[in-house]
Amino acid sequence: MNTEKKFVAINYICCKDHYKPRFEELFGSRAKAIDSMPGFINMEVLKPADGKSEYLIVSHWDSQESFKKWTSSPEFIEGHKRGFEDIRIAKEKGEELPMTSDFKTYEIIAK
Amino acid sequence: MNTEKKFVAINYICCKDHYKPRFEELFGSRAKAIDSMPGFINMEVLKPADGKSEYLIVSHWDSQESFKKWTSSPEFIEGHKRGFEDIRIAKEKGEELPMTSDFKTYEIIAK
Repeated sequence: MNTEKKFVAINYICCKDHYKPRFEELFGSRAKAIDSMPGFINMEVLKPADGKSEYLIVSHWDSQESFKKWTSSPEFIEGHKRGFEDIRIAKEKGEELPMTSDFKTYEIIAK
Repeated sequence: MNTEKKFVAINYICCKDHYKPRFEELFGSRAKAIDSMPGFINMEVLKPADGKSEYLIVSHWDSQESFKKWTSSPEFIEGHKRGFEDIRIAKEKGEELPMTSDFKTYEIIAK
């Protein structure tokens, strides 16, 4: 494992109130499919203290390329399977989506 | 040093384009006043890949209490001295502020 942290991806998750316990459960028992990806260093799931802001999924990678390979990998689908299924069901029922997400990526410029 | 990461503070920095090189310089040569604070674990400065989003200053602490003590400490003033001075000068000249910031705090709920 390369421990030099250079590249960070943050998935900003906007979660409906009723879905928050389920969201936390999904990450508490996450599939860890990401952990074996080449270039993956670590991840943390951050819960906002104010109870209103977005959850953050922060992952560190050795490069942008490693991150991009993951987002188009079978492991990405596997790791998000249960959440994707919840969204699919909500769509099918014509309900509001339980969560929406937005990836932003960053370079570490100082420590 | 306690290496158990529990608490995360993120300072979201909205930086005017003309100020970005200066902002990056300040962090590239940061005072490291924060590093000796009790309960401080580490920090990273994240530059957005899209060139438009906010910079993120992400710091890990052993507890919320340690973080709060830092924000009201002499080290906080010391660590932000040059940035605060830039803002003061802009205000004095009646110019737009070169940057604005917003702290949000988080609990790590999964890794």
